[in-house]
Amino acid sequence: MKYLFGAPGTVSGLLLRVGQCLVASASIGAMASAFGFSNYTAFCYLIASMGLQVLWSFGLACLDAYALRIKRNLQSPVLVSLFVVGDWVTATLSLAAACSSAGIMVLYAKDLNFCRSQPQIPCSRFQISIALAFITWFLIAISSFIMFWLLASV
Amino acid sequence: MKYLFGAPGTVSGLLLRVGQCLVASASIGAMASAFGFSNYTAFCYLIASMGLQVLWSFGLACLDAYALRIKRNLQSPVLVSLFVVGDWVTATLSLAAACSSAGIMVLYAKDLNFCRSQPQIPCSRFQISIALAFITWFLIAISSFIMFWLLASV
Repeated sequence: MKYLFGAPGTVSGLLLRVGQCLVASASIGAMASAFGFSNYTAFCYLIASMGLQVLWSFGLACLDAYALRIKRNLQSPVLVSLFVVGDWVTATLSLAAACSSAGIMVLYAKDLNFCRSQPQIPCSRFQISIALAFITWFLIAISSFIMFWLLASV
Repeated sequence: MKYLFGAPGTVSGLLLRVGQCLVASASIGAMASAFGFSNYTAFCYLIASMGLQVLWSFGLACLDAYALRIKRNLQSPVLVSLFVVGDWVTATLSLAAACSSAGIMVLYAKDLNFCRSQPQIPCSRFQISIALAFITWFLIAISSFIMFWLLASV
């Protein structure tokens, strides 16, 4: 078993998963509390993608905690392949969701100047949610690289 | 030297790079020929990102062709690390550009129904350009995975 930072079944891996879970939940919270988000397909997709991320990271956090408790090795090729596929899929979906929402936000805030002229649009909440989605993507990208590295060297 | 599909210095690698170059150029062409694209930050960013992709892929295609001609091995750890970093950076930028533009397109075509109500917006050209950007991302993602795999097993 390799004690790489963030590898499955290590304390750093568990912390990384818990971090992903918390930031993604905060992103969902900020978006869901913004009035009128459901009028935008991209913002609904952001919530769906962050929801999937929470489920995936929470599942792996539980697995990491269990492995740490019973001191079990999680780094078999089959398990690591599964983690790699899941991590890459959720990472790509998170980046896609964050970027499509950011595209709309830049359009509203900069190109059309709606954030100033139409104060009923909760721009700041949207922006906080999108920023948190980007942080989630960054954290899951770290996990994805570590998993891929582990798989290639297993 | 490994003869992995798409590895640097092989015929498949050269074809993959040429394909990236062509599709990215077509995406730029479709976007630049659409009237009024410069009013949207995301569409300008798409052109910038695809331009960077063309430069990177063209450079590597030339390098592949040169290596094939003089039968030189390009798979040293230093060179492969450079390819990995470049490929991952351009792949992430391409996906971000394609998704942010797609976010705006979904907003216009579905949420606000502008494509029907305002026929002066060249929706179909924007859509073609975005679709080509996604294809470019897919091709560069293949290269990125191959390079990362090579680096981990060099």
